[in-house]
Order: sequence, then C-alpha cells, then structure tokens
Amino acid sequence: MEQRVSLVTLGVADVPRATAFYEALGWEASDEFETDQVSFFQAGGLIFAIWGREDLATDAHIEDTGATFGGIALSYNTRTLEEVDVVLDQAVAAGGRLLRAGGDTPWGGYTGYFADLDGHTWEVAWNPDFPIAKDGSISLS
Amino acid sequence: MEQRVSLVTLGVADVPRATAFYEALGWEASDEFETDQVSFFQAGGLIFAIWGREDLATDAHIEDTGATFGGIALSYNTRTLEEVDVVLDQAVAAGGRLLRAGGDTPWGGYTGYFADLDGHTWEVAWNPDFPIAKDGSISLS
Repeated sequence: MEQRVSLVTLGVADVPRATAFYEALGWEASDEFETDQVSFFQAGGLIFAIWGREDLATDAHIEDTGATFGGIALSYNTRTLEEVDVVLDQAVAAGGRLLRAGGDTPWGGYTGYFADLDGHTWEVAWNPDFPIAKDGSISLS
Repeated sequence: MEQRVSLVTLGVADVPRATAFYEALGWEASDEFETDQVSFFQAGGLIFAIWGREDLATDAHIEDTGATFGGIALSYNTRTLEEVDVVLDQAVAAGGRLLRAGGDTPWGGYTGYFADLDGHTWEVAWNPDFPIAKDGSISLS
C-alpha cells in the first residue's frame, strides 16, 4: 500500500444540496461523472466525493447508526491566521454549524471547527509548522 | 476557501497501536512532531494524522457517541485490479476487519472495504476512470 489517500467520500442526505454547500465555499464540482447521486471535486492530488450516505453504507456493508461523528475530522489549513475566521464565517453563512470558534492553540497555531450540512467535521487551521505550497500541497517540513 | 483538503485526522483509542497498523500496511510515520499522542504521515500533498479520539472530540467541541461510522469513507485506489484483494488481505492480516470482499462494480471497477482497528472505513478501489500518476496523485480525467 503506497502512502497516499485517493478519495475522501462524504456520505450525505442530499447530494445536490451538499454539493451546493461546498460550491458556496468557493469550490467547483467537476462536470465529469456528476449526477444527482454523486459529485466529485478535484482537490489537489486527491478526489473529494459527495455520495448518498445510504449508498455509501450499503456499498461498504455497514449498518449505519446515523451518527454524525465517527472519529474523523478533515482539516483545511489556511495561509494566514486571519483566514481562519473568514472561512468559519463563510461556512456558517452557507448553512454550516460552528462547532468551536477560532482560537489560539498550545502549539502556536490558530484553529476552529465547523460541521457541514450533514454534520461532517472540518477543522480550519493556521499552522505555521506545516508549509503550504502554491499548488495547495501541505507538508510536514 | 481553496479547493483542497489539508489533513485527514483519524481519532483513535491508542495512537501507537493505530500508527503500527498503518506501518504494517507499508506506510511510514514522520519522525517530526511524533509523540505517543499524535503521529503524522506525509501522503502526497495531504497530511494523514492519527490522534486520540477523545482529544479530537474535545478540541472540536463535539459530544462523542463513540460511533465508528459517521458517514465518511477514505479510499485507496490501486494501480491494478489484482492489488485490491492484496491490500484487503494485508489490512486483515494487520488486524483490520473486512467489511466487504473485493467485487466487480456496476461502473466497471473492482472494490472492497475494510475497517481499521478503530473502525474507520476504507474503500480499496480499482477505478480505470481515475488515472493515478507516478507520484500517487489521482485525477478525474
């Protein structure tokens, strides 16, 4: 297994609604393969997918309890500290829920959290230890 | 918000144990910032993080019900069809749980699913529609 993640798939209640949420944050879904059942976003070397939650659970043979937190968080790292609050505000304006307002961290960063329309957890983080390249790649050093 | 995901963080019961699981699959945690509380893997332009689940839930101000499926799946896409079963077998050998054995999909691919030691859902997929570059980046066309 090479050291990489190919797709992150969010299971949602309503694919067009969830797609519109991410588009309201400035993303653009790919025209390719898009239907009312699934949408894809090219996100750097990763594909971000939105799929019906029931379809996902059925495909994976998972009995779904409907929980919104399964112990996974996605992070969006910003290029400046100030952007953290901007992104959190945008997410709330688009219908997301603020989980924790932006604040300083013990390790010298600044982070906050929101949940998207289906409760999926996003950290928005400014972390000066993790450089972000022009193309959006982030690295540990 | 630029169209990218910076980190995927898995909340786990035991960070060294979960780190060892991914290392058994052939990954290598970074020496940087690694402690018993957190570990990081450089995964292409993304950082894959393993953190205590309680720490993550507390940080995000989430009341954690302990569910293992919150509607998110990660995918590892293989370069050949045959690799899907190899990776699923490796995951099971490392202590993961087979959720669904490899099988053909209606869209012409071949996929299966496993859960890691903490129940996090991974799809292992061969999808001829999504090319994988030498560096591991995957793209929609």
